[in-house]
Order: sequence, then C-alpha cells, then structure tokens
Amino acid sequence: MSGNTFGKLFTVTNFGESHGPAIGCVIDGCPPGLDLCEADIQHDLDRRRPGTSKFVTQRNEPDQVQILSGVYQGKTTGTPIALLIQNTDQRSKDYGNILQSFRPGHADYAYWHKYGIRDPRGGGRSSARLTAPTVAAGAVAKKWLQQVYGTTFQGCMTQVGELEIAFESWDHVPNNPFFAPVADVSALEDYMGELRKSGDSCGARLRVTAQNVPVGLGEPLYDKLDADIAHAMMGLNAVKGVEIGAGFACVAQRGSTHGDSLTPDGFLSNNAGGILGGISTGQDIEVSLAIKPTSSILIPRATIDVEGQPTELITKGRHDPCVGIRATPIAEALLALVLIDHALRHRAQCGDVRVSTPDIAAAR
Amino acid sequence: MSGNTFGKLFTVTNFGESHGPAIGCVIDGCPPGLDLCEADIQHDLDRRRPGTSKFVTQRNEPDQVQILSGVYQGKTTGTPIALLIQNTDQRSKDYGNILQSFRPGHADYAYWHKYGIRDPRGGGRSSARLTAPTVAAGAVAKKWLQQVYGTTFQGCMTQVGELEIAFESWDHVPNNPFFAPVADVSALEDYMGELRKSGDSCGARLRVTAQNVPVGLGEPLYDKLDADIAHAMMGLNAVKGVEIGAGFACVAQRGSTHGDSLTPDGFLSNNAGGILGGISTGQDIEVSLAIKPTSSILIPRATIDVEGQPTELITKGRHDPCVGIRATPIAEALLALVLIDHALRHRAQCGDVRVSTPDIAAAR
Amino acid sequence: MSGNTFGKLFTVTNFGESHGPAIGCVIDGCPPGLDLCEADIQHDLDRRRPGTSKFVTQRNEPDQVQILSGVYQGKTTGTPIALLIQNTDQRSKDYGNILQSFRPGHADYAYWHKYGIRDPRGGGRSSARLTAPTVAAGAVAKKWLQQVYGTTFQGCMTQVGELEIAFESWDHVPNNPFFAPVADVSALEDYMGELRKSGDSCGARLRVTAQNVPVGLGEPLYDKLDADIAHAMMGLNAVKGVEIGAGFACVAQRGSTHGDSLTPDGFLSNNAGGILGGISTGQDIEVSLAIKPTSSILIPRATIDVEGQPTELITKGRHDPCVGIRATPIAEALLALVLIDHALRHRAQCGDVRVSTPDIAAAR
Amino acid sequence: MSGNTFGKLFTVTNFGESHGPAIGCVIDGCPPGLDLCEADIQHDLDRRRPGTSKFVTQRNEPDQVQILSGVYQGKTTGTPIALLIQNTDQRSKDYGNILQSFRPGHADYAYWHKYGIRDPRGGGRSSARLTAPTVAAGAVAKKWLQQVYGTTFQGCMTQVGELEIAFESWDHVPNNPFFAPVADVSALEDYMGELRKSGDSCGARLRVTAQNVPVGLGEPLYDKLDADIAHAMMGLNAVKGVEIGAGFACVAQRGSTHGDSLTPDGFLSNNAGGILGGISTGQDIEVSLAIKPTSSILIPRATIDVEGQPTELITKGRHDPCVGIRATPIAEALLALVLIDHALRHRAQCGDVRVSTPDIAAAR
Repeated sequence: MSGNTFGKLFTVTNFGESHGPAIGCVIDGCPPGLDLCEADIQHDLDRRRPGTSKFVTQRNEPDQVQILSGVYQGKTTGTPIALLIQNTDQRSKDYGNILQSFRPGHADYAYWHKYGIRDPRGGGRSSARLTAPTVAAGAVAKKWLQQVYGTTFQGCMTQVGELEIAFESWDHVPNNPFFAPVADVSALEDYMGELRKSGDSCGARLRVTAQNVPVGLGEPLYDKLDADIAHAMMGLNAVKGVEIGAGFACVAQRGSTHGDSLTPDGFLSNNAGGILGGISTGQDIEVSLAIKPTSSILIPRATIDVEGQPTELITKGRHDPCVGIRATPIAEALLALVLIDHALRHRAQCGDVRVSTPDIAAAR
Repeated sequence: MSGNTFGKLFTVTNFGESHGPAIGCVIDGCPPGLDLCEADIQHDLDRRRPGTSKFVTQRNEPDQVQILSGVYQGKTTGTPIALLIQNTDQRSKDYGNILQSFRPGHADYAYWHKYGIRDPRGGGRSSARLTAPTVAAGAVAKKWLQQVYGTTFQGCMTQVGELEIAFESWDHVPNNPFFAPVADVSALEDYMGELRKSGDSCGARLRVTAQNVPVGLGEPLYDKLDADIAHAMMGLNAVKGVEIGAGFACVAQRGSTHGDSLTPDGFLSNNAGGILGGISTGQDIEVSLAIKPTSSILIPRATIDVEGQPTELITKGRHDPCVGIRATPIAEALLALVLIDHALRHRAQCGDVRVSTPDIAAAR
Repeated sequence: MSGNTFGKLFTVTNFGESHGPAIGCVIDGCPPGLDLCEADIQHDLDRRRPGTSKFVTQRNEPDQVQILSGVYQGKTTGTPIALLIQNTDQRSKDYGNILQSFRPGHADYAYWHKYGIRDPRGGGRSSARLTAPTVAAGAVAKKWLQQVYGTTFQGCMTQVGELEIAFESWDHVPNNPFFAPVADVSALEDYMGELRKSGDSCGARLRVTAQNVPVGLGEPLYDKLDADIAHAMMGLNAVKGVEIGAGFACVAQRGSTHGDSLTPDGFLSNNAGGILGGISTGQDIEVSLAIKPTSSILIPRATIDVEGQPTELITKGRHDPCVGIRATPIAEALLALVLIDHALRHRAQCGDVRVSTPDIAAAR
Repeated sequence: MSGNTFGKLFTVTNFGESHGPAIGCVIDGCPPGLDLCEADIQHDLDRRRPGTSKFVTQRNEPDQVQILSGVYQGKTTGTPIALLIQNTDQRSKDYGNILQSFRPGHADYAYWHKYGIRDPRGGGRSSARLTAPTVAAGAVAKKWLQQVYGTTFQGCMTQVGELEIAFESWDHVPNNPFFAPVADVSALEDYMGELRKSGDSCGARLRVTAQNVPVGLGEPLYDKLDADIAHAMMGLNAVKGVEIGAGFACVAQRGSTHGDSLTPDGFLSNNAGGILGGISTGQDIEVSLAIKPTSSILIPRATIDVEGQPTELITKGRHDPCVGIRATPIAEALLALVLIDHALRHRAQCGDVRVSTPDIAAAR
C-alpha cells in the first residue's frame, strides 16, 4: 500500500519525479463554493521555488501551476482539483556520475533496495522538488481555513547550523531569503557564504505556527492532532525531529509549571503548543522542526556502489547547501493540510467546529 | 472521522474507558498461522500495568487479557483478533472533585469542547489506561516480526526530570522499576521519592529501538516510515517531542559528518536512525521521545470550571508522578505496530521484504 | 488488508466466530449526544435471531447485547461503542462429519485455500451468525438517522423459491415469521413445510427501502450511494444479485419511460430507486436482493475432501432451509449503515445535509 | 469524504470534467518492474472511445493517453503513475439549453442539490467521459494480472433493449461495434437504427468475466470479492443491477442444484460465478450488469428548472442512444481493478496467492 496520498478527508495525491515531464497533485474533498484561481496558489509556490537567491539551488523552475479540474467559473465545485506543474529545467546529465553509487545520507540506497529499481534523475521521486505539489495543495487549504475560521499560518527559521536566530518579529520573515525573523541577516549571509565555499551543508531548525485555530480538532485515540502534525512534519524531506509546544524542554519541567493555567481570560502560557489530549484548545499551534544537512555535498565521501564495492563520491549538480532554507512554506502547507483535514473530520462526526472563544485567546 | 484505529493493513481498533466495564481492541489483518496464546500478550501487559512499584499509580489492575476471537487451536486464523481486558479497580469517587473543573495540562478541557460531553471517570477515554490494548496488540506484532524477520525491540528511560541517565546496558532495564539501563538506580529512587513528597510530577525522555529490521519498509511520499513512527509516538499520551536518529542534534551537524558512510561491511554510523528517505535501511531504528509531566498533581493550580469561572484545583486520586516510567513498553509496542504495518504494506506492493543483509549489519 | 470494517466515517469493525466465546463489533465515529441503551439495539437483534420459528435454525441464542464503551449516562460520547454478544448455544460436535470435506456452495473451500487454516466450528467466521453485530450497529445508525432526518427503514420478502409474494402492506411484515407483506401466509408455510421435509433449501428475494432520505448523499465518482449499497448488499451472506430501482427491468425500458419526470410537486415515478448519478434525490431508496439457497442441506452431494479425494457429504446440524427469511433486518441494517456513513461524509465536505423537500416527496 | 479514489492498495484517483482542459488519473500502488508504455493503455481506450460507429456519440476524441510519471526506461518504478488525456472536442454551446433545467433520469438534479454548484458543460463530472481514466488504469491492472497470474478478461453485450443476444463466441466480440458475441449483427443494427430515428434511448445487459483467477481473493466479512465487484459495477454510470454467477435466477433454485459440486477434476458447474463466501475459488468470475437507457434524448420530457418551475426539455447535443454499447471495456477494466486490488490485499496478509489449481479448472 503506497503512501502518496496525504490526509483522509481533504486528500492530496502527489505524483511526479524531479526530472519527469511534470509534477502535480489531485486534491479530493475540497468543499465546494470556495473562490479559487491559480494566483491563490502561486504565491506560496513562489516562496518555495528554487533559484531565488544564491543560498539555494540554482535550478531555474518557474513552478507555474495549472488548475486542470474542479473549478468552474472561479469556484471549487466539490470535485477533484488537479494541479499540474511542468518541469522545465531538468539537467539529468548532472547526475551521470552518481548513478551507480549511493550518497551517504541520501534516499537512493533505500529506494534501490525497496523497489529494485529507481529513477536516478535528480533524485527521482525522493527529490525535495516533490514538495511543490504539497505547497500548492496547502495554499488551497490555507485559503479555506482563512475564510471559514480566520486561521492563519506563519513560519520562520530559528537556527541554521550552530547559529541560533533570536526571534524579533514575523514582519522580517518575508524580507530575507532565509525566512529569518530578524532585521539584520548579515550574520546569516556570512555563515552561509562560508558554508558554500567549504562545499559542505548544514542543518536548520524551523518554527511553524497557526493562529485562530478552532477548538476541538483532533481524533484520539490514535489520530490526535499532534500525532498527525508529527506525521506530516517528520515526512517532510530531511526532518529528523519534531516538537509540539515545549517539546523536549518538557522533560525537565515540573507538572506545576508545564500545565498551562486557565483563567476566564484564557490560558496563561502555551507549553501545550495549542494541543491537549491530542485535541486543539484554540491556542496557537506551535511546532518546531529539526532539518538535517543536505546529503548532496562537494566533499568526497566513502560509500559503496550498487555492486557493494567501496568507492568515493562527490555530488556535483545544483543542490541546496541548507535544505531548511526553503522548507518554511512547506511546513506551513503541511500544517494547513493537517488542520483542514481535521476540520472536516470534526465536522463529519460533531458538526461544525467553533472558532476560538475569547476566554482562550489571551495566552497566545 | 474518528481516529481509534491504528495502522492500515495490520489495524488495531481500540475501545473502552478508564472506568467502564472493560477495555480492549480488535486486530484486523494479522497473518494466519501465527502461534498465539494469552501468555504471549500478557508479558508486555505486565511490564506496563500499574501498581507494580511505589513510583507509579497504585491502582490495582491485573490487566488480564482474554482472546475472544481469531485464534483456533493455538494459531491465528487470519480473522479479527478481539482482545478484552476487564477493568477491576475503578474508584470513580476519587474524581468527584474534578468533574466541574479543567485540570491545567489535561485533556479534559479539549474533550469537553470537542464532543460537548465527556466521561469524567478516571479521565474516561483520555486515560493512559487505554494504552493497555495498544500494548496487547503490539505484543502480537512483536511476535510475528520476531518469527518472520528476527526483529527485536528494546526501550529504556534516558532522562527523568533534570536527571540524565547514562546508558550502561540493556541488561539492566528489566531489573529496576524505571526501565533504566543502569545497574544502580538509587539516584533515581531518591529523585522520585523527593518528587512524590513534593506532590508534583516530572517529565521523562525515552529511547526505543528495533533491531534486525527488514530493508525497504516505508511508503514515501507521505507515509514514510519515520513519519508513521512520529505519528505513533506523538500520539502516545503526554509525548511532546520525537526524534529519529540524531534528531535535533542534526541541526548543528555538517552534511559531511551527518551522512552515514557506507562500506562493504555496513554503515559506519547511524545518524539516520535506520531510515533514509523515509525507508528503512536495515540499520537499527532509533527513536527518542519527550514525555511531559503528568497533569494530575497535588499542588493547587489556578483554572476555570465548566461555566468559565475561575477556581483552584488539586487532583487527588491515584496518579503516576512520572507517566514516562511506564511508557517504555508502550513505545516499543507502537514501534512494533508501525513496523508490522509497513512490512505488510511493502509485501503488498513489492512482494516479500528482505531481512538486513550482512553488509549493513556492522554499524548498529 | 483485511476487510472486517464496514464504512469510512461511521465504521463498524466486526469480530468473532460462530462457536467462539463471543461475537461483537466496535463502532467508531458515532456522533456524540445520541441517547442510546441496550434496548435500542436489542429490538433488531430479536428480529434477526435464530430459533424464533420452525422455519429457521433451531439454535437457541438470546443474542443479548452488552454495551462495553462509548456511552455515558445514557448518551453516546463520540468515543468507540463496543458491542458484545455472548455465544451460548454452540454445539460444535454437530460439525464433526464435515471437518474434512467441502460443502458444495459453502465458503469452507475458499477459506481453506485463502488462509491455509480455518475454524470449522459452525462455519467459523463465514457463518451468518456474524451478521448479528452488523444488525446491532445498524440499530445505532437507524436511531441517529431517525432522530436527525426522520429517516426510516422497511424490508420484506417478495419471493421465496418459485413463490412470488405480492405486496399488500408493510403492516403485515411484523406479523409473520417470513417478513412477508401479506396477511395470509399459509401458502408460504406450506411451501416451507414441503421444503423442510425434502431436506433441501431454497432462495429468496427481498426488498428493502428507506424513506425520508436526505438529498445529496453519495460520493461520485466511485463511492456513489448505489455503489456502496451494492457493496453492502452483495457482501451479505448468500446474496448473488442486487438491484436499485427498476433494476434489470431497465434493460428493456426506453429512456422516455425510464427517466422519472420532475414536477413542482415531486417526481412522477421512481425508476431511479431514489438515486441519480450516484447521489440520493430524496425519493425513497429502493433495493432488491437475490439470496441463494443455503448450502447446508440434508441431501447428499458429491464433493472432495481436503486431500482432493472424491467423497459424498450430508450436512446435519441446525441450519436455515431458507437463509433469506432472517435476512430482512440485516439488509435494513446495512442500508442504514450506508446512509449514516454517507450522511457523515456529506457533512464533512458540504456541511449539513438537507432533508427531502416537499417538491420531491410526491412520487414515493 | 469524497469518493474519487478506487481501490485500497492499487488506488486510482480520477479527475477532470467532460469539457475541462483534460481528464486523467493517478495510480498509486502499482508494483514496480512492470513493463509499461502508452500503447499498453491505448488499446482499451480505443475500444471505449466515442465516435467509432454511428451507434455511439459522434464526439470526436482521440483519447490519447500520456504517462506523466511512475515509469522509467519502460518499467514501472513503484511510484505514482499519472495518466493524462486531453479533451479536444468540447462543444459546450450544445448544452446551452439545458443549463437551467434538470434532465429526467440525469445526475444534474442530484449534483445541483449536493454541491450547490455544478459544472454543466457536458454533464461535467457526471459524464460517462470520466470512465476513460478508469479504462486506462484498468489496462495497467490487466497487464500485471496477465503477467503474474495469466488472468484474462472478456466482456460482451447479452441484451439490448428487448433484444436478447444469444452467446455464440467470444471471437465475434471485437468484430462488431456492439461487443456482441454473434457473427451476424444485422438485427442489432436494425434495432439501433430504429431507436435512433425515434430519438429515444434503450438499456442493455452486459456480461463480463475473468479467467485464470487466483484462488483466495476477497476479504470477508465486509470487503468480499463479490461485494467489491458489485461496488465497482453499480458505480459504473447508468448501471442499475449487478449479478454474480446465477444471480437472480438463484432465487428459484434449490440448494441441491445451486451448490456447485466439486470433483477431483474441478467444479461441475459455476452457479457461484467463481466466488464462495466472498472469496475467489479459481473458477471464472462471472458478472452480469443492467444498464439503464441514456437520459439525454430528443423526446420532450416534463421537468422542472432550477427555480422549481415546470418546463419541458429536449436534450440535443451528441449522446449515446445506448450507453451500454461502449460499457464493455469499462466493465472489464473495473473487474481488473477489483482483482488487482484484492491480489495485493491478499499478498499483504497471506503472502503470494496461488493460481488456480488443476482440480478446479474443469467447470469454467
């Protein structure tokens, strides 16, 4: 049973390979009557797309989305929405030298052993390029959630390599190529400049949040809201860790401080990250991710080839030195996809959800 | 769409409440022909059950499992396996004082708002008691994985509150009530003794692993093996963070060190935690969890009641001061349930999986 | 991937064997707040249960249902509802003579080849006894549909063997053991009396309907309402044919007569059986079923044993000479389960459904 | 929860509208390593496509399929296979006169009420044109089943309107535009010619079969093989009845004749239609369908408009006078999709299936 469909009621079925003719997805379950056009989707695709700064891969893809179905006279009809993105700048020759060897830290080894075959061009199906359809679907989810509940999404980078980034303001995030919540990114530019020169790559830590989340989303016992968020985030390429609210810091907390006190004016803190018992409380959803360093680097690595023989490998081609840089819009999209799915799931069993009430709005 | 079923091909449907007549689950999809009896399941239930030391809740539940169906003459028949556990030591009166107020950090607030109704007895459906059927189902999964692939599972506590626990050996784990991998647990006993006296609770960090995992398990793009592990673990009561392999430490790593080198004798390290591109590599699966402090404590907390009025709450009754202590067998069970589900999913599309080959056995 | 769960949003997971300790099911997804007690369920179980007339199997099962979870203070809580029915009158020795041979027309051959093992006691999992949990779950579905939409269900036998039964009135159905819509069932009694004496069995044709069905239920392209009804009905033991509305008679109809004309006062006919394009129109749902003769008969049949050797078989024990007699409440339950599932599915995507409007009420 | 995905392990997600830019589907779960190219798929598309005789709609669509993903160097890779078919001959103006009224017997009334919006161009999503992607996916399923088990599929028309078509030979089916198993189709041509002149439409009855089916496919209790076949077939546009094996004729049969006797050389008859207890026996699968007359006819019909006012309607445009004529390849495709899905489901739980053994091959 393959796993290329995300969600249960708002489902996104993803297809395509990095160097095939096109990539895309089919959304099934979008409520009818939503105003939707390509421009609604293109904005987030543009935030994610490659080639926009010298700190990301130089592959030049416009990532222009086409709506093939499910929209009539500018409104969703409740039928499947097929989204298509042409691949335009494949250079499969770049990969010639790595066809027969496995990159340390890369998916190629696992794909080869799983399927007995792989499309090696640009990482084939394992390429981060396949997050584009996810972002496109997420844009549809965001729009619906915004219109129905006023839910909004934000994300930023909070650490790159060893360099922690102190949070200043969400306002700065769109103004720099790092999605950094700071006014001055010169330290980041220097850091990334050094990294590129070294031919190496580094990890990153991201924060992603949702505001104005309806109370009551999440389906215990097993499909808790935090469980499904963790599923979504850990499934994002290169993610190795996920935290909700206080995350790993909760280990050293006492119950008397961790539990967020309630008052008639709302919660007094948000260690829970907006989720208790697997169900949203109306507080902001707070998620943190660890993204590993890109495996495709210019430093030679010891590895084996498909025959099991030892060899050494350098990965040329166009790669992101820190794949975390472009991951913020993807993480936002995934969070939106989880929330819309749970909003529909909740509506099925319990009827319409309630937006966050005044008493819980305080401690965001 | 409710979420009380775990897994897609080896499905576990969980039912019951903390203080109802019984709890249990139905396993659907277990391969036929597996030798199975109650004793196979009871062992892990006994590891999880309450009342076994002074550091856990004193509720006295034998957690005796009964197989109602799906087994004939000691073998699974391929039909649903229903497992039943009677509740025997409910004391619902213990909860009388908290029926009308919400415990800070507890699921009661969210359940109330989601369903408009809740069973308050013992936390009802949100009680950690409902992990018992998960453990029971996990024991069936473990047995099949052991027989077919030789896969084994281990888990231990690596931190309790501020107290880090250095790993000495798996051999110590069964010999102390903390699932601690150390010979001398006096420091732990002291720490927990102090905590209990204070009426407070603390968090914990666990490690759980699987050995002899077949290569090729995991279903990208969305149902990657690590994504499903994260789903399972974050869905475990009180978990706020999940790591695979190097986890959050990968943020500060370079690609040249994070990527595990391959040699003809196997991988040279395991930063990946046994998973690349969302697919198992045959290395050990390595998972780490953060478990928050129990919300039911004896220290008075500010909160509101169901009318939204401010009040103060103390949670009496029988509670675990560190819910992480009993969580190790649950985390193992969840890991086993994820692996068997993916083993069957892989078998469906790709045919039988391969056990880990010699070349990848080295760097566990 | 096993198939013991019915429905997608209102799911019923069925377990148990004919001669095991108990049978039952877990309902997940029932909306919270529904008044529910055992008596609500028992009524339909009593309509289905064996031993109530000389025309059905003499196995004496009270089929007393117990609610194990999901109901608190007489209301559903939105958590799983586990229903348990003890088996009390197993006589496994009755089956001693057929353990090693396959009954012509029976599931035993297929189970044996599928699983490599089978529970032969009373047909094990393939026994019609396993429809009892379906009926129990259907009673919950019926109650919710009745309360929310006023939907009601009716079923009757329209043919037994060669004997067609002209429809007189629904009022007669509860007054005879055949679910026949006629006042005088002496012809039926004579027919069945002759059949029993012959040691043979016969087929039956049933009609099942739903009234006051909301408009808009059904999920094209593939999960059309009629498709899911056909799935449910053909999955009922012994069913070999399913019709919606005009059914096979439509083959010889012209479009100018088949298409039901609409007027401001409603449709003028119901060849559609209440479903167009796979979506309910608000007209009555009309379904017809063909049920094959029971395979367990006293007439000797040529067959083979598990070694493939020819043999002859007579099936003693307690069997229904016409399994269709008790099938009416099961078919009603299945129809109710399909409708509630689609009501919740519709609500998820499109919001609350509308009950049938006056303009379409006429031509029922 | 929308229903545009067919299957559980070999899933087909269908998208597009009759007059949108393109239609297509995404197949997820296809086993890797299957040789596949467009020509493998085009053959069945050509059998279904419109405009090939004067007895079907004159819309001119080449239905040329493009594989967008999932195939590398002529082999499936185990990743999603996206299939795209451009719409080239839309004439939306043909539908101008029916935008505001509901066609008796057509899906437009139900779509309007369900979604509150509809794409009226060419029937939008409810058009039989959307069976093309199903046929394309079915061709992939057929190829895999043929290669792995030698399974083959055949279908034919057995009745059109009142005209029954006696079965002569499968060999005749490809030689006439009716999929009729007879050498001389002049009676059919006359019948259809008269019908077209009258401006009316008629129904049809089809038979579809599979040979060399593995033993053991089907997942009781609810996802029996016949249940899933009924789901597939009843979901095909215009189908109102489905039979397996003896179908409705079983009502008047005795158990002593209906039950197919087994001998060491195989079954002696096939009343079961190849399925017992919901599981395949290795005999041929035998299915029969009733297809209603097309609702789009030139004869004026009484109906209402979207305001509920009475009106009269004639449906111009290009329509099939007997939609059953082109349905044979669709029914074959659906049967293939059900079988591959169950083959993978069986493989997941029970390991590889067995092809039909000699002892059951006789009574096909």
